Amino acid sequence: MFKKLGFRAIVGLSSLVLLLAACANETNETKPEVSPDLEKATETVNAKTPNVIKQHADLNEKPIPLEMERDGSDVYVKMTAQISDIEIDEGNVYKAWTFNGQAPGPLVVVNEGDTIHFTLENHDPAIPHSMDFHAVHTAPSKNFTDVAPNEEGTFSYQASNPGVFMYHCGTDPVLSHIANGMHGVIIVKPADGYPTDQEVDKEYVVIQNEWYKYNDLDDMTNGVPSHVVFSTKALHQGQPNTNGTVGAVIHSPLEAKEGDKVRIYVNNVGPNEVSSFHVIGTMFDDVYIDGNPANHYKGMQTIMLPASGGAVVEFTLKEAGDYKFVTHQFNHATKGAAGLIKVTK
Amino acid sequence: MFKKLGFRAIVGLSSLVLLLAACANETNETKPEVSPDLEKATETVNAKTPNVIKQHADLNEKPIPLEMERDGSDVYVKMTAQISDIEIDEGNVYKAWTFNGQAPGPLVVVNEGDTIHFTLENHDPAIPHSMDFHAVHTAPSKNFTDVAPNEEGTFSYQASNPGVFMYHCGTDPVLSHIANGMHGVIIVKPADGYPTDQEVDKEYVVIQNEWYKYNDLDDMTNGVPSHVVFSTKALHQGQPNTNGTVGAVIHSPLEAKEGDKVRIYVNNVGPNEVSSFHVIGTMFDDVYIDGNPANHYKGMQTIMLPASGGAVVEFTLKEAGDYKFVTHQFNHATKGAAGLIKVTK
Amino acid sequence: MFKKLGFRAIVGLSSLVLLLAACANETNETKPEVSPDLEKATETVNAKTPNVIKQHADLNEKPIPLEMERDGSDVYVKMTAQISDIEIDEGNVYKAWTFNGQAPGPLVVVNEGDTIHFTLENHDPAIPHSMDFHAVHTAPSKNFTDVAPNEEGTFSYQASNPGVFMYHCGTDPVLSHIANGMHGVIIVKPADGYPTDQEVDKEYVVIQNEWYKYNDLDDMTNGVPSHVVFSTKALHQGQPNTNGTVGAVIHSPLEAKEGDKVRIYVNNVGPNEVSSFHVIGTMFDDVYIDGNPANHYKGMQTIMLPASGGAVVEFTLKEAGDYKFVTHQFNHATKGAAGLIKVTK
Repeated sequence: MFKKLGFRAIVGLSSLVLLLAACANETNETKPEVSPDLEKATETVNAKTPNVIKQHADLNEKPIPLEMERDGSDVYVKMTAQISDIEIDEGNVYKAWTFNGQAPGPLVVVNEGDTIHFTLENHDPAIPHSMDFHAVHTAPSKNFTDVAPNEEGTFSYQASNPGVFMYHCGTDPVLSHIANGMHGVIIVKPADGYPTDQEVDKEYVVIQNEWYKYNDLDDMTNGVPSHVVFSTKALHQGQPNTNGTVGAVIHSPLEAKEGDKVRIYVNNVGPNEVSSFHVIGTMFDDVYIDGNPANHYKGMQTIMLPASGGAVVEFTLKEAGDYKFVTHQFNHATKGAAGLIKVTK
Repeated sequence: MFKKLGFRAIVGLSSLVLLLAACANETNETKPEVSPDLEKATETVNAKTPNVIKQHADLNEKPIPLEMERDGSDVYVKMTAQISDIEIDEGNVYKAWTFNGQAPGPLVVVNEGDTIHFTLENHDPAIPHSMDFHAVHTAPSKNFTDVAPNEEGTFSYQASNPGVFMYHCGTDPVLSHIANGMHGVIIVKPADGYPTDQEVDKEYVVIQNEWYKYNDLDDMTNGVPSHVVFSTKALHQGQPNTNGTVGAVIHSPLEAKEGDKVRIYVNNVGPNEVSSFHVIGTMFDDVYIDGNPANHYKGMQTIMLPASGGAVVEFTLKEAGDYKFVTHQFNHATKGAAGLIKVTK
Repeated sequence: MFKKLGFRAIVGLSSLVLLLAACANETNETKPEVSPDLEKATETVNAKTPNVIKQHADLNEKPIPLEMERDGSDVYVKMTAQISDIEIDEGNVYKAWTFNGQAPGPLVVVNEGDTIHFTLENHDPAIPHSMDFHAVHTAPSKNFTDVAPNEEGTFSYQASNPGVFMYHCGTDPVLSHIANGMHGVIIVKPADGYPTDQEVDKEYVVIQNEWYKYNDLDDMTNGVPSHVVFSTKALHQGQPNTNGTVGAVIHSPLEAKEGDKVRIYVNNVGPNEVSSFHVIGTMFDDVYIDGNPANHYKGMQTIMLPASGGAVVEFTLKEAGDYKFVTHQFNHATKGAAGLIKVTK
């Protein structure tokens, strides 16, 4: 069952700046559409996927952009739960349960202390979905509750701690919702920054997740993943990637210049496996466990990420050339969890 | 083989105080008895459990309370190795190898620097058992040695470091003894306390463990757990729970008040899996890895517990409502490792 | 499939001193030879191992010693990639892909800031091999590149950070090369030492690795290990063990005196599993995560090692007697990952 997989790192864009206004509101009203160019592939998938939910069978909604707007320290975020095809491997299309047609979902970046006003619009015609941000303090029974099919819900809470946090659908069975694609990362930028902020030349976001047999809760619970992959999310003016690559597997490497100190915001969204994150040919000069400036490690070859654990890792690329990053649990690297950084003079 | 499991958190009681005298001595001489109300269930289990040890087949000894007495910094602890039925899931009774009829075994709380005088009475008619406290410095070949069936042994050692330590039977094959139920937690309270002691309103103990096919060493070695569960142990005047719930699965949630800072002493006793411990709707303001005040982390969403690893985690529950805690390795949460904290105004 | 395995710790020798000159050069030109005493065992293995590479079938090259020479802060290291039989369990001979006929390969010890000039001579007639040192900063595409069969390559890079680093063959598929035996440890000694250097009486190196079905990439990727084992490497004048035990399973325990503070340099080279490293009967007074003096923990029962993660752990053995060390993931301890420290008065 072993398949040699290529890199699946999506290009990250330039440096992180404070997030300001975001996408225009006209996308608000976008309604489900089936993307014709993936129709054929999807047919094949459905034939092979006995576990597809009947109402999802013919559904492949185009990715709807994240909406985000700031008013002082109030941040208004709108996401859409939608069923969309994701190419998880060449020619292997997974009819994912997604936030905004992406898996992992769109990157969210806020500041420590912000109040998030979050709206979830559920385009899934069959089942409820919800949002659990690891970045906030709130009663789950009040603010992580289900949004029924074709409805929307709005919730408010504060992002009081800095870090690299997982978010995911928290609707039962949670394992199915995460494993089918409903996961992502929210970065809460520390009010006082990181002690090493001035040294950093490039910033990227890397997310590790697993895929299992299509919507097969028994395989998700007792099996081993078919794929373990990395995705990267752009840090471009604090917005998620808007370069047309949402939801697609891109083989483009990350980029840096010789001598650059690179920072990666990394999170292992699981749902089941831990990660041993490592960049080949360098070591992490500075590590902030879960992205909190107070949890500062020095000089590490590999960091241990629990399921849903995050970190900020910083490293210097002293020579031009190609540097892969992997989980050093090589069974998982073999299943896809390998990315590439291209360093030029 | 997936089964949706309910919460199995056992109510923890009120605040931790210094342990003083303990249970009366009359229970010392309790001899094995079969609890009639579990007899029927057990019959079914035995039919399904080809690996039951012949002399255990008709054995279901009532839980014998832990004995504990203090004289200055000398603490006298007596436990009983006994075969007792444990309901690990609704209607699923496991003929466990236990300390005191509980799995996990009774909570022990001592102070940093105490000398423990430990007696193990072995009521198992078939096989030897022993005690390995992770909290002490001693030669295992001298003080973690086997106690033969129907005999007792006494051992002395010092608890010289603070923390949240695993204890377990160390008799060969260790994996069988732990996986069949012989594990628990001993807390060694730091002489100078934790820096955050004054902020804490409520304290609980949570233990994660796995269950495998009954007494099946091959499944324990090469399989996946059938159940991964949390138990809580009461912190009531330094004694283990004495509210009649020993060894039973209780669906009662932990309790807190809005705004409370809650401390959990957590240990993952395994025997095989690591844990990604997480409380939904909050984050850990303060974490002491392995429960040592010197290993202080801040602001973490999830902590990584190795097999037999512990921690003290503290978090604030800002709103009334229901907060689940899980291992974020969701295959294990799906198998039962989910508990509930009920927060009221 | 469970087999009870004995200890496989190889005796470590005396105290660590700065490495100086090393093995003589005459071994440089050693050519492959088949060790006659393992021939019979190997025949059996080959019959059982459909995955043996044809050109390896009759190959069992005698271990060639590591070569190492220092000139100021320039260190010249030469290793040989060779196919050699390793007894991974009593009577169970594995035709390993090795560095210098050992698996794990020979220990390398250098000083922080040293420049390593590394030569790999590839005696494997069939496939290329390479060297990825986690201890260095260099472009992998330039300096971790393949050395073709019967060729040699030389590479230079700096060991700029202190720690206990993994090294391994980085040739595709990496999982096969590591799982077949091409892994080891390089220690980079901190320029300013560890804060606890003066307290340490004995030093050892312990390495954890897994074995899978012979050269079976599917089993390596989706299966569970057949063996999880510890090896120790001698720290004798900075050289790897030269006591004739290279590549063999030795049942000799580590040694210490009552009251000794023992330091273990530990690394979990995987390739797939994480480790919960624990010494029974004591606890780690001091822990340096990944071996960096800046990452200092206190008083831990068990440390979490990611795949390829390292640590320096120090502990005191207060009484004479036998102390086992294990990974507390007891399925792995059951498969062999248990060693012994013998403490005498």
